[in-house]
Amino acid sequence: MFFASDNGGPAHPSVIEAIAKANGGYTSAYGAEAGMDRVRSRLREVFEAPEAAIYLVATGTAANSIALATLSNPWDTIFCTSMAHINEDECNAPEFYSGGAKLTLVGDQDAKMSPDALRAAIAAEESRGVHGAQRGPVSITNATEKGTVYSPSEISTLTGIAQDFGLKTHLDGARFANALVSQGCTPAEMTWKAGIDVVSFGGTKNGLMGVEAVILFDPDKAWEFELRRKRGAHLFSKHRFLSAQMEAYLADDLWLDLAARANATCARLADGMRAHDSVEFLHEPAANIIFARFPRKLHKKLLEAGAQYYVWDGDAHQGDPDEPLTARLVCDWSIGTEGAEAFLAAMRD
Amino acid sequence: MFFASDNGGPAHPSVIEAIAKANGGYTSAYGAEAGMDRVRSRLREVFEAPEAAIYLVATGTAANSIALATLSNPWDTIFCTSMAHINEDECNAPEFYSGGAKLTLVGDQDAKMSPDALRAAIAAEESRGVHGAQRGPVSITNATEKGTVYSPSEISTLTGIAQDFGLKTHLDGARFANALVSQGCTPAEMTWKAGIDVVSFGGTKNGLMGVEAVILFDPDKAWEFELRRKRGAHLFSKHRFLSAQMEAYLADDLWLDLAARANATCARLADGMRAHDSVEFLHEPAANIIFARFPRKLHKKLLEAGAQYYVWDGDAHQGDPDEPLTARLVCDWSIGTEGAEAFLAAMRD
Amino acid sequence: MFFASDNGGPAHPSVIEAIAKANGGYTSAYGAEAGMDRVRSRLREVFEAPEAAIYLVATGTAANSIALATLSNPWDTIFCTSMAHINEDECNAPEFYSGGAKLTLVGDQDAKMSPDALRAAIAAEESRGVHGAQRGPVSITNATEKGTVYSPSEISTLTGIAQDFGLKTHLDGARFANALVSQGCTPAEMTWKAGIDVVSFGGTKNGLMGVEAVILFDPDKAWEFELRRKRGAHLFSKHRFLSAQMEAYLADDLWLDLAARANATCARLADGMRAHDSVEFLHEPAANIIFARFPRKLHKKLLEAGAQYYVWDGDAHQGDPDEPLTARLVCDWSIGTEGAEAFLAAMRD
Amino acid sequence: MFFASDNGGPAHPSVIEAIAKANGGYTSAYGAEAGMDRVRSRLREVFEAPEAAIYLVATGTAANSIALATLSNPWDTIFCTSMAHINEDECNAPEFYSGGAKLTLVGDQDAKMSPDALRAAIAAEESRGVHGAQRGPVSITNATEKGTVYSPSEISTLTGIAQDFGLKTHLDGARFANALVSQGCTPAEMTWKAGIDVVSFGGTKNGLMGVEAVILFDPDKAWEFELRRKRGAHLFSKHRFLSAQMEAYLADDLWLDLAARANATCARLADGMRAHDSVEFLHEPAANIIFARFPRKLHKKLLEAGAQYYVWDGDAHQGDPDEPLTARLVCDWSIGTEGAEAFLAAMRD
Repeated sequence: MFFASDNGGPAHPSVIEAIAKANGGYTSAYGAEAGMDRVRSRLREVFEAPEAAIYLVATGTAANSIALATLSNPWDTIFCTSMAHINEDECNAPEFYSGGAKLTLVGDQDAKMSPDALRAAIAAEESRGVHGAQRGPVSITNATEKGTVYSPSEISTLTGIAQDFGLKTHLDGARFANALVSQGCTPAEMTWKAGIDVVSFGGTKNGLMGVEAVILFDPDKAWEFELRRKRGAHLFSKHRFLSAQMEAYLADDLWLDLAARANATCARLADGMRAHDSVEFLHEPAANIIFARFPRKLHKKLLEAGAQYYVWDGDAHQGDPDEPLTARLVCDWSIGTEGAEAFLAAMRD
Repeated sequence: MFFASDNGGPAHPSVIEAIAKANGGYTSAYGAEAGMDRVRSRLREVFEAPEAAIYLVATGTAANSIALATLSNPWDTIFCTSMAHINEDECNAPEFYSGGAKLTLVGDQDAKMSPDALRAAIAAEESRGVHGAQRGPVSITNATEKGTVYSPSEISTLTGIAQDFGLKTHLDGARFANALVSQGCTPAEMTWKAGIDVVSFGGTKNGLMGVEAVILFDPDKAWEFELRRKRGAHLFSKHRFLSAQMEAYLADDLWLDLAARANATCARLADGMRAHDSVEFLHEPAANIIFARFPRKLHKKLLEAGAQYYVWDGDAHQGDPDEPLTARLVCDWSIGTEGAEAFLAAMRD
Repeated sequence: MFFASDNGGPAHPSVIEAIAKANGGYTSAYGAEAGMDRVRSRLREVFEAPEAAIYLVATGTAANSIALATLSNPWDTIFCTSMAHINEDECNAPEFYSGGAKLTLVGDQDAKMSPDALRAAIAAEESRGVHGAQRGPVSITNATEKGTVYSPSEISTLTGIAQDFGLKTHLDGARFANALVSQGCTPAEMTWKAGIDVVSFGGTKNGLMGVEAVILFDPDKAWEFELRRKRGAHLFSKHRFLSAQMEAYLADDLWLDLAARANATCARLADGMRAHDSVEFLHEPAANIIFARFPRKLHKKLLEAGAQYYVWDGDAHQGDPDEPLTARLVCDWSIGTEGAEAFLAAMRD
Repeated sequence: MFFASDNGGPAHPSVIEAIAKANGGYTSAYGAEAGMDRVRSRLREVFEAPEAAIYLVATGTAANSIALATLSNPWDTIFCTSMAHINEDECNAPEFYSGGAKLTLVGDQDAKMSPDALRAAIAAEESRGVHGAQRGPVSITNATEKGTVYSPSEISTLTGIAQDFGLKTHLDGARFANALVSQGCTPAEMTWKAGIDVVSFGGTKNGLMGVEAVILFDPDKAWEFELRRKRGAHLFSKHRFLSAQMEAYLADDLWLDLAARANATCARLADGMRAHDSVEFLHEPAANIIFARFPRKLHKKLLEAGAQYYVWDGDAHQGDPDEPLTARLVCDWSIGTEGAEAFLAAMRD
């Protein structure tokens, strides 16, 4: 009953196998190995983007920070929501990598950026000339940090606003596959066809040990990205082990299968929880994350039964047993509906 | 016959096994897993340093850059040799991580920093007050980028000079195990007993997929290091896979065995090459790297026979066949004396 | 009728005289001249702070940015209001000088930071460990960018909250003298007695050509400040001309006289405007700035009569003549009540 | 007898007068005043560069650092000599402003960069791909920090090498006027006609209080320069006082007159010193700086007679009276030949 995070789960066995298989003999280092050629070709196919520049790094923060630094100047401000991973969970890595850009927090609805708020925030930077921060890229996350999902059309609306001001857009796709499965659209529809310029294409939260791809649909800044990656110490010498993971991830649509599993687990969990009178969802779950409120006494029971998840806003063990507290439940690919059933059973008992 | 780099070889099979074994179930992320506790304990034993702060990162450049940034101010200069990896091969990562510190290049003998040159270089920064760069840490590499090795006593001499000026010292130990085996001393003797403050303890070039430990003998700046690692995007969520590699590396002294193998291969290769009249060593090989000069025609023959290595100073295929060119030959742990014999056979034929 | 900014006015004649007088013969450079000793002594007296470290720079942005960088780590967040000069008008200089710190925007009332909002904002950074930005200093502005003024007691409340969390506080005193005159308190009461750690003590907006002092009540980081100033290229070789300005500013309380003039002009202007039915103040003017709303047709008349000021929220010449628009009127020391009368006359005509 | 530095002397009286004259009434701030328009026009004429982008800052370090940052990427290395002000006397400001670029020190002859050494240094960065620092701009100083002077033809040779590799060039002209007078050429011949891309055109060391112009012959990066200047806190609100100084400097060729005076004083001093048997020049003085060696006893006598200058390499008062020590003598514009005569008289007595 582990719902604490999709960072705490295992890699898929075929990923480990791929690493073992990649471990024979000698090869070029630093991404010049044949495996990276295959990854690049496959991702270009997957994204219907034959010109895209594609790179691998090992952490999502690296993917986001180097991508955003490549799209920004140090005197820019990056538009994102307050819950964005780049704002809350990267210890100023975007500011570091960009050389001192700032983040402007844009209003949201359940972690999805509001188009009106975006337009207002960009417009607000209008009149200060050299004195204010300059307008930089827009960064959104799909699926969001709250588990909500943008449709391609919603993304287009946001990127359209950015384009009205000549700004680029970045998609933090740490849970890209979960969003895609949720929407039933193609990777191209979710990204460049919707106006996205650069994607952090996540793998670590969806069955890899630690690999994310960065996809620049316009390869114009590819060399700059390479230099920023190296200077950030994120170019791996034994890069074959990153390529091997990503190759396994893409083979036979494993990445989509794993996300489908996670989403299905989450849907099962949500359905079961919905049956409880005392459970209220903060918003409708759309991918593999649930935010729900229910009484402290129920939290207490679940945690004592061995469930692991974050209680967002208080102490599950001390206080009024009827006070509702918020749970964040994240469904890793590996949990399966049986994991959801176990949780629901504990809830019922 | 792969002597191009110890970055091009495989991981040791037991490292892959350890990863597979670590892949079960759920665990804390970001280094809070039990495996990291074991790694920390073991490294403290290995280095006889029960108070040391110990962290894992995935690249040597990350280890060096974050370590040096932790020891430096942005207005400092770091003392190193011109061939230092931090100067030549990290695309300004030390400057980036330190926020703009500079490197002062100190004279060397076969890549080993000269004590007199170090003292002179530090002294030269004496009189400019606020105008000049301030004196920062000294960084040396053992084994060096040329394959030479400092003895503990030679290290003590350099750290003693640093201490005379109140400066800290960093050891880039990308090939630490090779140096240790070469010297037959203990890790403590090579480091803190010789005055070293922080070590980048390499694993990637000696049988790991991609893990380096940073060891701060004085834990005073441990929290700063943690923040710098996170901000640099080098804190892994599924950190268990770094811990697993390092644990396997330390188990049963695998790390020393692998380095001993590499050094033995190198010694065999050097002995065999010495028998050739036309071969001249730039300096006596001491760990797992050889720099040797021999005629172009011999390079040509070797490369055509399938040997892989870098010709340092020219085109092996075009030019006077008798002109001597420099080879850099690096012996990976995996090559074995049979690999050396194959090379020597090709040399003879 | 120039009410556009206190950046557009002249220096006080005695400041020019002081510069001319400082222009004889040879002297030490870089702040080692005798004039700086006198400035330091005098400011220590003025602030009743005999241990304070005191430095001069030529721009307010330099004063703020170097001061905040000295109080911050690159992984910190600085707490300020959204209208703070450091947020809106310094083109990411604080982010640049701090090496990538971020700003957290705290709620305000008429540009005065709300204590409750400050406590909540600091508390919100509580639980993310290494993942979130770390808590850095609090920065407030007095008089504020809207012309409101904190009392010493209000400052104490904010610094007390900062101290509860172990945080330092910075006061942007670009209009320090205007605030002081408004409150009728001493410099010490406005600053260190109210818990402030570092002040940017402005001169440029109050009769100097371009000099601001930075006062660090705790001299512990004085040397770091000096290095940051030099590295930022803000240490003047012919520093005597900065000292001379500041010395003239402090002599015979010129600085207080000039601020008193500016505030009096502002009070006269406000009184006169208050008589108009169509004028509404956004908040009660307290120093030398007025924010007031009145109909477009009145703006149009004033501007056509030669008044210069910013219309904050629209076009004074196009649109419904009765629509109210906001004026920002800043009273420079040099305008005098006759300037206010001229404006009021134009308003009446 | 002040020969310590051209930072310790006064501003020319007409500069003070210009400031006083600029002090009337209200004007636009931040460089939008009419005086800056006149400065821009005049400098374009002086440099025969009608398209050039021209900006003022108050320190030479700001001029150099912002100029070089505008020409560099953070992953570049800037080529300069070891004695360059940007290397020795700016406390890592170039590294700070560029976001972490490094400096590669190129061999020199009497502080003039050697063309062969430059070509070799650039070539040496050839083969490391993403691993090494990338090649950035070349920066030279004229007149040099040793008082030697490049001819336009010597500059062309260096810029030609830079252009062979596609690199830009920067001229640190802290003593530009002294070099120009020494060579008897035009500003255009010394700069863009000789291949220079950006000049720091000094004023502070030649009679201004504190103003330097940066001239970008190609205005393509003008906006970037403006943002970097603002972000560095070097955009003055009461900018009129910078413009006024520069306008006075250019009026009636004051700048050339002052440099001619300084050079003439220096030439007179050198001629007089040459008459002494015990005086040896390190190199032939060419602008307003002399480096000469003479016995300690002569230093002692001069210093006791009230001469002020730096003894470069030892204690003038302690040690063998016959041991030769090096003097650096800098002739400020204000000293005049009578100052030189006084020194020579003291030498003779």
